[in-house]
Order: sequence, then structure tokens, then C-alpha cells
Amino acid sequence: MISSTTSLLAPVDNDLQILTDNLKKLIGARHPILGAAAEHLFEAGGKRIRPAIVLLASRATMPEHNLTERHRRLAEITEMIHTASLVHDDVVDEADLRRNVETVNNLFGDKIAVLAGDFLFAQSSWYLANLDNLQVVKLLSEVIRDFAQGEIVQSINRFDIHASIDSYLDKTYYKTASLMANSAKAAAVLSDASAEVTEDLYSYGRNLGLAFQIVDDILDFTGSTEVLGKPAGLDLASGKLTSPVFYALEQQPYLKVLIERKFSEPEDLSKALELVKNSDGIEQARQLAKDLALQAAQSLSSLASSDSKNALNELTNYAVSRLY
Amino acid sequence: MISSTTSLLAPVDNDLQILTDNLKKLIGARHPILGAAAEHLFEAGGKRIRPAIVLLASRATMPEHNLTERHRRLAEITEMIHTASLVHDDVVDEADLRRNVETVNNLFGDKIAVLAGDFLFAQSSWYLANLDNLQVVKLLSEVIRDFAQGEIVQSINRFDIHASIDSYLDKTYYKTASLMANSAKAAAVLSDASAEVTEDLYSYGRNLGLAFQIVDDILDFTGSTEVLGKPAGLDLASGKLTSPVFYALEQQPYLKVLIERKFSEPEDLSKALELVKNSDGIEQARQLAKDLALQAAQSLSSLASSDSKNALNELTNYAVSRLY
Repeated sequence: MISSTTSLLAPVDNDLQILTDNLKKLIGARHPILGAAAEHLFEAGGKRIRPAIVLLASRATMPEHNLTERHRRLAEITEMIHTASLVHDDVVDEADLRRNVETVNNLFGDKIAVLAGDFLFAQSSWYLANLDNLQVVKLLSEVIRDFAQGEIVQSINRFDIHASIDSYLDKTYYKTASLMANSAKAAAVLSDASAEVTEDLYSYGRNLGLAFQIVDDILDFTGSTEVLGKPAGLDLASGKLTSPVFYALEQQPYLKVLIERKFSEPEDLSKALELVKNSDGIEQARQLAKDLALQAAQSLSSLASSDSKNALNELTNYAVSRLY
Repeated sequence: MISSTTSLLAPVDNDLQILTDNLKKLIGARHPILGAAAEHLFEAGGKRIRPAIVLLASRATMPEHNLTERHRRLAEITEMIHTASLVHDDVVDEADLRRNVETVNNLFGDKIAVLAGDFLFAQSSWYLANLDNLQVVKLLSEVIRDFAQGEIVQSINRFDIHASIDSYLDKTYYKTASLMANSAKAAAVLSDASAEVTEDLYSYGRNLGLAFQIVDDILDFTGSTEVLGKPAGLDLASGKLTSPVFYALEQQPYLKVLIERKFSEPEDLSKALELVKNSDGIEQARQLAKDLALQAAQSLSSLASSDSKNALNELTNYAVSRLY
């Protein structure tokens, strides 16, 4: 799957290699403990979708499709913020594995994970301020705020069958789509793109981010441990109600009972997984993801033609292709 | 002690009341869990020295000694950043009590404490960006970076008798003095003060912050649990080597042995405390704190006379008066 993403991201393949090297230098050089954590984090085989979007949006909006140093730094900041949020999420969720790799809290303990996440957030704030563009600072500080908000809403809404698909989509915007939306927009700001293109890239990131997350939701029901890098059904087991569940709840009243008692009886969880699979929930979620990916693709119409624009467009297909 | 601080801060007493009310509104309104944590944090009887310095530096540098809304917001941001760092420090240090009050991790658990700290950092970043002053953004993002750095250095240097008083003072700058130095400077920037006044307020905050911390170091050896809000000797017990210890190590070779074996034998800790008390370490640290407080006072000479300048000056006396 990684190699298919790589060819998809061909226009920025070299840029992503430079980014990975830079991130290790920026983070790892300071302290041995962080060095180990950084090596671990930035080696962990991530698909680098987020910085790839920034780099592609940057190239697509620059007159000659060339990157500036500030565009590269923006992509690095984006990946730092994303990684920081993952490290703290894994502490809060007590997660042992991510993408089949042990988490920082699992390897080094919660304390180091709190420190490492704080350090990454702090470094990203500092590099951000030193981009010397107040509008970009505001866009990315909005992302950091949305992350914290999303994580809190998610904690509160565990096992809450009264939450709605709308509040779920808000949470998903905060936790996933805000970063893609605001960082793509920030890339356009650094390119001095028109207001139309700038807003269109925001919409692109927003809709693509939501589509990616909803596909992940579905794969939690349909995927294998091997593909997911974590056991299937984990979201539901931990009380995270995702898009297929909200749709399934409309058809399967007994699902409410199982969730409300937090799967406390034997077989409750496997019954609940069956009820979701036997409803239209997964199909409805799939349709929603396809609609969002289509909207993302349509947002690109104001951009001039380029390899990078084509790659951004291909990413919208890739997002939903993971379902098949 | 709090009432003596209050009269000391008379020129900004009302401002501090407004600040406390605003902080509860800014943080508490969003979510019930955070509301409880915010209420707890901002009620906890803190002396509000940090925002007081910002408010006093603001009034002292404004032509008519009046505050703008942006000065007030800067003071709030300063307290938010400080509070966020305390919340995460307490997770990392597994602290149960702070200022005689239960910590957030103790009351609500580590997960909520990680979330609450992240939320406070995120809010402060957002309000900071919206002050619309790139220089101020840079100054405060430097503080956030220094915090993370200081906490890491402190974690690494536990029980490390090869660390020096200089590396200790660097750590103390990162964890304590950077916030006072950069936020006092930022207040002057918002006032459009001269470059001389702006740099002098940086020096004031730096030296005062170091003095405050060194006095706290001494009180950890000489104070009672009641006054400290935590058991005496706790720094040393947890391997945090502070200024009196670095001085004492020069005179008491056996102290090295005790620290290197991490007080693993019975009576090791009480022996070590005795060795520090029977050395000149406490007196040398006291002298250092007095020198730093004096340097802080001298940095105020470029400021025009005002009640606020007087209060800033009095704070330098207050910092060391806590020793007597």
C-alpha cells in the first residue's frame, strides 16, 4: 500500500525524502531520548499524506511549480503537529500499537511520551512563528486548537449513543480534516495564490480529510489486523462510535443496548460488530466517503493544470480506493 | 504570604481579578471536564506573579500607564502557558500535591491532565496568534519551546552529579525565567517602548525568575511542609539537584556517593539533607539569589517613575524576603 502511495505522490517524492531527513535533524539532534523517539516516529513508515498534500498544494500554486524554503518548512511543521498529536493521543487512548509499530508510550513510557509530544508541539510553534507570516500562524494555531478540542469531544462522547453523526463529523473535522484543510490553505497563502484558490484548497483538505477518516472507520469493521496495523473492531470496543455505527443505530435498536452497557456481557462486542455489518451502515458510510472525495476533487477546478494538481486529484481516488 | 503579595501588587490588584474571571470564562465554558479542571486550576490560590509582572510591565511602559486589551490578553496567555506547563510537569513528576492542593492528575487522572494541558497550550497559541503581533508571537513561542527543553533536561539530569551549576541555571532559565523574561519584554513591545526599555525588561524578568527559583530551591531544604505546600526535601529525594546541592557537592564528597546510589540505603536521604545543611551550599545559593534580585532591580533604571515601576522593584525584594 505504501508503494502505491509513493508512485501516486511522484511529483513530491524527492521533497518527502528531504522532509524526512530534515525532521530527524530538527528533532533528534537535541537530546538522546528525543533522538530515539524521533528516529522511531519518523521511521515508522507513515504514508506522509499530510506533508505530501502541503507540498503538492505548494507546487500546484507556485507560478513555476517550484518550492520555496518556507513551503518546505510548512510541510515539516504540519508533520510535526500531526506526530505530536498522535503521541499524546496514544497516551490518552493507552494504545500499544500504531501502524503495526509499538507506540512511544509503550516503548518509553507515558512520561517520555508526554514530554516528546510537548517538545514536538513546542518546536512546531517556534518554527511556525519564524515563518514570519501572521496569517499562516493563525491558520496552524487553529489546527492545534482543533486537535485539543477534538480529543476532548472524543473522550466525552465514548459510548454516547445520543451523539449524532453531525457531532461525529465535527469531531472528525477537529481531529483530522482541520490539519489538511488549514495546511493546504496555508501553502496557498505562502504562494500568494488568489483568494479563490486559497479557499478552494481549504475545501479540498477539509473534504479529503473527512473522506480519509470515514474510510478508516469502515476499515475498522472490514479490515484485517494485518492491513490495519491494529486489531479490527478496536474503535467500537473502546467506545469510539464512528460513521457506520451512527447509521447502523438507526436500523438496529439492540445495538443501543449493547453499547449503553459498554459490552459488559460475554459476546456483546461480537454481536455488536455483527449488527453493524448486517445493517446498511457500512454502505451508507461508503457513500458519504465517496461524496466527500468527489467534492474534494471538484474543489481543484480553480487550479491551473500541473502534475501536482493531478496528484492532488489522484489522492481523492486513492482515499476511497482503499475500500476495494 | 498571599496577602503580603497582594498588597505588593496593589497597582494591578483589580487587573488580576479581571484576569482570573477571564481565564475561567476562556477555558471553562467549553467542556464540563475542562470546566472542572479550570475552576480547580485557576482557583488554586496561585500568587499570579507571572501575569502580575506582565501587567506591571505593561502599565509601567505605557505613556499614561493605562492597559490596552492586548496587554490584558498577553497576561492571560502568560498564565495559560504557565498553568499548562504545571499540569504536564505534574504528570511527568507523578506529583500529587501542588501548593497544598491536589494536582489535576491526582484528581482527574493522567489522561485528563494530558488533555487539559494540551488544551491550555492550544488555547494560548491561538490567542497569541490573534494578538496580531509577530514579534510577540515569536517571544512567547520561544517560551513554549524553552519549557519543553527544560523539562527534558531536568528528566535527563536526575541524580546526575556530573551536571554543573551552569547547566542547572540553564535549565532554570528554560523552565522558569524564560517566561518572565520574554513576557515582560512582550509587554514592552505591545507598549511600543524603546529598544533599551524592552531589553531591560527582558533582563529584569530573567534575573527575577532565576532568583525566585533559587529561593524555592533553598526553601526545599529549610521550609516546612505547611509553608511549602509539599514535603520538604522532595526535590533531592526525586533526584532533582538544585543550587544548594551543586555548591554542597564541592565540600561534601560523601554526598556524591549518596546521590549516585539514589538514596537506596536506609537513612541515605536524611544523611544527604544533613550534609547539604552542614555545608555552605545554602548560604552560597542565598547569595546568588540576592545578586540576581539586585541585578533585576538595576534593570529597571531605564523606566520612568510610576507606581507600577515601584511594584516591580518591590518584587525583587519580595523574591528574597521569603528566605527570612
